[in-house]
Amino acid sequence: MDNPSVWRTSLPAYAVSDLLWPGDHRAGDLFSDAAVVAAMVRVEHAWLTALAEHKIADLTVPDLTGLVAPEDLPQLAIDGESGGNPLIPLLKLLRARLRGRNTAAAGWLHKGLTSQDVIDTAIVLCLRDAHDRIRAGLRSQVGSLSRLADEHRETRMAGRTLTQHAIPIMFGLKAAGWLTGVLDARDQLAAVTFPIQVGGAAGSLAAPAALAGGPGRARELVATTAGQLGLPSREPWHTSRAPVTRIADAFVTCTDAWGRIANDVLVGSRPEVHELIEGAAEGKGGSSAMPNKQNPVHAVLIKRAALAGPPLAALVHAGAAAAVDERPDGGWHVEWATLRTLARRTVVAGAQTAELLAGLRVDTGKMLATLHDARPDIDAEQQSITPGVAPGHPYPGATEEIIDAVLARAAAGPG
Amino acid sequence: MDNPSVWRTSLPAYAVSDLLWPGDHRAGDLFSDAAVVAAMVRVEHAWLTALAEHKIADLTVPDLTGLVAPEDLPQLAIDGESGGNPLIPLLKLLRARLRGRNTAAAGWLHKGLTSQDVIDTAIVLCLRDAHDRIRAGLRSQVGSLSRLADEHRETRMAGRTLTQHAIPIMFGLKAAGWLTGVLDARDQLAAVTFPIQVGGAAGSLAAPAALAGGPGRARELVATTAGQLGLPSREPWHTSRAPVTRIADAFVTCTDAWGRIANDVLVGSRPEVHELIEGAAEGKGGSSAMPNKQNPVHAVLIKRAALAGPPLAALVHAGAAAAVDERPDGGWHVEWATLRTLARRTVVAGAQTAELLAGLRVDTGKMLATLHDARPDIDAEQQSITPGVAPGHPYPGATEEIIDAVLARAAAGPG
Amino acid sequence: MDNPSVWRTSLPAYAVSDLLWPGDHRAGDLFSDAAVVAAMVRVEHAWLTALAEHKIADLTVPDLTGLVAPEDLPQLAIDGESGGNPLIPLLKLLRARLRGRNTAAAGWLHKGLTSQDVIDTAIVLCLRDAHDRIRAGLRSQVGSLSRLADEHRETRMAGRTLTQHAIPIMFGLKAAGWLTGVLDARDQLAAVTFPIQVGGAAGSLAAPAALAGGPGRARELVATTAGQLGLPSREPWHTSRAPVTRIADAFVTCTDAWGRIANDVLVGSRPEVHELIEGAAEGKGGSSAMPNKQNPVHAVLIKRAALAGPPLAALVHAGAAAAVDERPDGGWHVEWATLRTLARRTVVAGAQTAELLAGLRVDTGKMLATLHDARPDIDAEQQSITPGVAPGHPYPGATEEIIDAVLARAAAGPG
Amino acid sequence: MDNPSVWRTSLPAYAVSDLLWPGDHRAGDLFSDAAVVAAMVRVEHAWLTALAEHKIADLTVPDLTGLVAPEDLPQLAIDGESGGNPLIPLLKLLRARLRGRNTAAAGWLHKGLTSQDVIDTAIVLCLRDAHDRIRAGLRSQVGSLSRLADEHRETRMAGRTLTQHAIPIMFGLKAAGWLTGVLDARDQLAAVTFPIQVGGAAGSLAAPAALAGGPGRARELVATTAGQLGLPSREPWHTSRAPVTRIADAFVTCTDAWGRIANDVLVGSRPEVHELIEGAAEGKGGSSAMPNKQNPVHAVLIKRAALAGPPLAALVHAGAAAAVDERPDGGWHVEWATLRTLARRTVVAGAQTAELLAGLRVDTGKMLATLHDARPDIDAEQQSITPGVAPGHPYPGATEEIIDAVLARAAAGPG
Repeated sequence: MDNPSVWRTSLPAYAVSDLLWPGDHRAGDLFSDAAVVAAMVRVEHAWLTALAEHKIADLTVPDLTGLVAPEDLPQLAIDGESGGNPLIPLLKLLRARLRGRNTAAAGWLHKGLTSQDVIDTAIVLCLRDAHDRIRAGLRSQVGSLSRLADEHRETRMAGRTLTQHAIPIMFGLKAAGWLTGVLDARDQLAAVTFPIQVGGAAGSLAAPAALAGGPGRARELVATTAGQLGLPSREPWHTSRAPVTRIADAFVTCTDAWGRIANDVLVGSRPEVHELIEGAAEGKGGSSAMPNKQNPVHAVLIKRAALAGPPLAALVHAGAAAAVDERPDGGWHVEWATLRTLARRTVVAGAQTAELLAGLRVDTGKMLATLHDARPDIDAEQQSITPGVAPGHPYPGATEEIIDAVLARAAAGPG
Repeated sequence: MDNPSVWRTSLPAYAVSDLLWPGDHRAGDLFSDAAVVAAMVRVEHAWLTALAEHKIADLTVPDLTGLVAPEDLPQLAIDGESGGNPLIPLLKLLRARLRGRNTAAAGWLHKGLTSQDVIDTAIVLCLRDAHDRIRAGLRSQVGSLSRLADEHRETRMAGRTLTQHAIPIMFGLKAAGWLTGVLDARDQLAAVTFPIQVGGAAGSLAAPAALAGGPGRARELVATTAGQLGLPSREPWHTSRAPVTRIADAFVTCTDAWGRIANDVLVGSRPEVHELIEGAAEGKGGSSAMPNKQNPVHAVLIKRAALAGPPLAALVHAGAAAAVDERPDGGWHVEWATLRTLARRTVVAGAQTAELLAGLRVDTGKMLATLHDARPDIDAEQQSITPGVAPGHPYPGATEEIIDAVLARAAAGPG
Repeated sequence: MDNPSVWRTSLPAYAVSDLLWPGDHRAGDLFSDAAVVAAMVRVEHAWLTALAEHKIADLTVPDLTGLVAPEDLPQLAIDGESGGNPLIPLLKLLRARLRGRNTAAAGWLHKGLTSQDVIDTAIVLCLRDAHDRIRAGLRSQVGSLSRLADEHRETRMAGRTLTQHAIPIMFGLKAAGWLTGVLDARDQLAAVTFPIQVGGAAGSLAAPAALAGGPGRARELVATTAGQLGLPSREPWHTSRAPVTRIADAFVTCTDAWGRIANDVLVGSRPEVHELIEGAAEGKGGSSAMPNKQNPVHAVLIKRAALAGPPLAALVHAGAAAAVDERPDGGWHVEWATLRTLARRTVVAGAQTAELLAGLRVDTGKMLATLHDARPDIDAEQQSITPGVAPGHPYPGATEEIIDAVLARAAAGPG
Repeated sequence: MDNPSVWRTSLPAYAVSDLLWPGDHRAGDLFSDAAVVAAMVRVEHAWLTALAEHKIADLTVPDLTGLVAPEDLPQLAIDGESGGNPLIPLLKLLRARLRGRNTAAAGWLHKGLTSQDVIDTAIVLCLRDAHDRIRAGLRSQVGSLSRLADEHRETRMAGRTLTQHAIPIMFGLKAAGWLTGVLDARDQLAAVTFPIQVGGAAGSLAAPAALAGGPGRARELVATTAGQLGLPSREPWHTSRAPVTRIADAFVTCTDAWGRIANDVLVGSRPEVHELIEGAAEGKGGSSAMPNKQNPVHAVLIKRAALAGPPLAALVHAGAAAAVDERPDGGWHVEWATLRTLARRTVVAGAQTAELLAGLRVDTGKMLATLHDARPDIDAEQQSITPGVAPGHPYPGATEEIIDAVLARAAAGPG
């Protein structure tokens, strides 16, 4: 059962687009309220199907998707407060709408599960969707950066440390450095798993085992449900939150890598430097008052996301560290919206970075001119290592080899 | 000109209610995309009015409110990316809709301002609305807590330090301690100001002065605009962000104070302690699987907000610390959504805390029973200070005086 | 009783200097382990003195200062773990050393107090010392910035927004903007108070009242102790932590303001911009490999502190939000070292900023040259507001008035 | 060449023990200033050795270790400010002391390297030492938790969700849940690598290649150096900071897992619950005023570390996200002390958690009594799933199987 397309098509766009986070629409309905509801419905559907397949419940599994409409969202959101989570009112709604149509399903719905099972697994589904989108962005970035690194193996420019000219470098080396950060993020993302969470009321599978006739059959139920959702199984993790902190860590590793690229582009696009220019597009980078301006808007918005990532991931960790009992009293609840925000912002920044890199213009002439102006000071290290060498003599070091190694790593795929 | 009611009434509720932050609907349309657009329109309207009043522009100031409808929001949000902020597409829309109806207004709209002037001032307006709502919540809390402190001056219970029984205290003292935190937050909120931001392209009021015929008249224009909006004047603060960090600090001081109350209620409502019980309401605190459960839902949700506050405020500071040039390249942009999230969550937690305190049930019998069970250990300090005193002899210290002092501070109003 | 000079003079310097936070030595022994011990001893001494003055204890108050030596610190630090705080082993040590010399004092020492009273008050004393040092730095900065703003009222340069040239400004306006941030920090610091904390075991003054013969006399004891220490009185705040979060907020407001200045200096000192140059000093800004380098070291180190401030202050808030019972079970403990780190880093960054500003070189020629190169684009707004104006015609707006207003605010002192 | 023992033995203890972070002495001299200097000396020594082995330098490699003494630390710390890092004064000192003894070594020292190469690699060495210590703590915890999970497979207790009684569970299940968190942390730590950083002035290996006679030989030099230090090679990562953020993420994943255990112990050791009691030790858990107290000190101090972890790791990410150019202008500098603090606190909390778990006393009688008192409510779910079942009928679910699976994972080692 795929993510029901009804949610995708019929959801009013303004339920998800965020005026105060320009670019947010790029994340579409990812992790929107509608997407979360759809994911919760999918989890309940998968469990119901597993109950039927294992002959525990005697029922025809209904299509739950059509039972909830976008119009239901506002009331569901409101009703979520009294029980402290959005699943309780959703269940009430589903049961009410099943009653009369499929009384057996109304009775078996959610049987053996606890709210946290459904919410955690639904959030994992949404995180996996975000993860897929982010990896698509990373693939595009890897492509652009590999090209930049390869094409600019011999593009000389001033290397800079602590803002000052250091020694001459090739722009391809800088691009390979950007790529290294992106590959580190790619690898960290690739190592993440998206496990199902089913443990019943207190993580012991007590009710599933009672329903299924034994612990082994209860675990089979979980495995069948996981299979339906395309998720790996895992022992219950109600209060062991490393699965979500690890995802948050991987996301912020992405925004770190992109932030560093954005920082370089912001420096490079200063008029006085003018080495790197964001690709132009109709209307992009304009100002409300100054017709002359061509702002590096993507880099600005990416830097913004890079500032936001660390505290958001820290909040996911703080929630994990506050876990207690068999279900936490607040540490769990703070995760949901935080993961959503972090996921959407990472998706958006990834798309913006992909676009930035695909359209980045490199002013090789300006790079060379600046390098010339920086002489003889910028040659000082070279002169001290090989006294008497002619000014402007190549000083590439292992640039070729480093670029080759990074390109090979890029081509080899996530490690 | 009040916040146009059209936005309040015609906005679909699901544009603002957040399924993953149960209770979010309590913040209503506060700081919603629609509210932000309305606030930006108000700022442009106030400026246009000032231009007309000062005879700089010869025009009949139109009602801008009716020019934008909720249906415009999705496209505005999308169009905000290319310029990196939501004001640019809003201006384009307003001008298009004014053209033909009021060409003079179309021409004068926004003249002399920069995007940041309008966005900053609009966000200040939204923050002030949040501030008003939070203070209303605080007033209610102060009332409930003053009552609890006063009523329970002689309600004995076990004082606890580092989770262990320490010495006997009165529950009124604990309530006075809660009240102290709330009053500290009240005072910090009361000291906050909500200044207008108008500086023109680079904070020098260059364009306003050129339009108005001199710097003095430019400053009068700003003062008139501020007056229209009910905001104090202030020198431009495009890259001096203390006005917003100070607000963020005050908000998180609120969630700190409420979090501490929630923590005490969460301990007090554990079945083994059972001294403090959240007020019941139809459907509140229920479980999806366990009919026996009566969860302290408000305390759980408040604790959640208390976890979230510090990193959100830290992000506002991180943005401020990243300011550079005459307008920051990302540090500014990260503020907007962060302030909105922090503001709405503070409003929600404040309302939940007010409700929690208004309905809190105090089991004085259980408190006394626990105190008895804690003897003689809990009397050890008293015995060491006044050896031979009879067990259970009062040991109130200055509880009365402390409660009186805190109640007096509460009654005196913000200091 | 002043902070005992013995600590200042005999403490080995390497107990406080931090190799991994270059510049840390500028904070001297502020908030060092020795300073904290000295402050705890001061608090115990003040309490003992109050007990004697109020005729509660019949004793000759000994000089406690000489009883602990720097050599005791390592063992005190180790022994602090078993009770979870450093006061318990300090008391044991003091009592052992008083015994035989002044048995009455050994018996009366700490009587009526709880660990938290002494630790909180000692930390307040250390914070106040930090505060004094930071304000001294601010005064120096205000002086330098007032001079820069005044001297450069007519120094033309390119104003920059989102990294791009916007309109011409005066460097004095930028300096006034920096000054505004510093004044905001100054005002926030000036509003902070440093209250004593004495509440006894559970915040009720039970033991002090039992010793003193009534609540009124207990409160007089506290007032006398506060007077000895030069601190204002306050109702007990064991679990209402706004006094320390407010200080942390003020400190991070300082590092925000300095970070923004550092960011501008870092941009301005890039060789391609070369408008602002850090003052040189023997050996400053050198490189281990590149003899040509002259790095803007102070700006780099200040930016570092500005990155560190927000999460440190957030941690103080997180501790406050975790408060529970009559003494928190971890939320309190996390404050101590965090406040020390935040305080020392703020002191260091303040001194570095003061020095940076005192020695900052402004290359007005380069500013003007860049402005010329930026034409005609940088004049576009002016041309659109006043079409036909001659290129290079002044466009100062209210620069003079804004500078005057900021200088007046600076001169008026904290508001 | 091992970490020179001279540092370990002759360093005054009070240079590393932190009075305000009780338990800090458990980290010994790990990552102390002395340890960092020793590590920097090791890196320089390894490079010098590689230069000699590859016949690039004609010299007898001296023992650098004895050239710097603890007494040098204070001045090194002070002198680090002018260049913004501690390596520059260390080099000056080493060269001065080599001169006369081994002029060739004085000349070749550091040749081809940049400060960041040495500092990054030295910090990696310190992080690896911390990592080893943390893994030792984890091994102990895994042992204790495996035993607890296995021994308490049938120890009945009340399962709790959102602070309220939910369904009966076995304490062994809770212990298995704790173990799951610890194993997640173990796996994340095991996946971390500790790569060398050598790239020369701007990451191109320009100087090493010029010295060695080609890029291939330069890379061999790096490989030899890495081999000496027992570190894997890696392309230069001056501005791609994922290697350190990944370590920080792993550390905070540890403190998350321990924090959750501490939270459960803090609840369990409340007198009203009294199910879990910290092991007693002479003097541990005492109070300065209340002889009756037996505080859960380890749990308190562990919770403290769990609060501190997330913002510290966030700061490492914020530094990474601020990277720019070929060496960052502050983002790099903020890492050093932050990583040290995070590493030491993780080591300390790991040791405390190991000790807590090794000595934890489980009051199975109190668990059973509470479970009885919680009836019939706590049986409500079971009654609804299997109506009519006798009260107290076992309801273990898959507890055995879950415990077996977690124990098998523990025994299998890091995955």
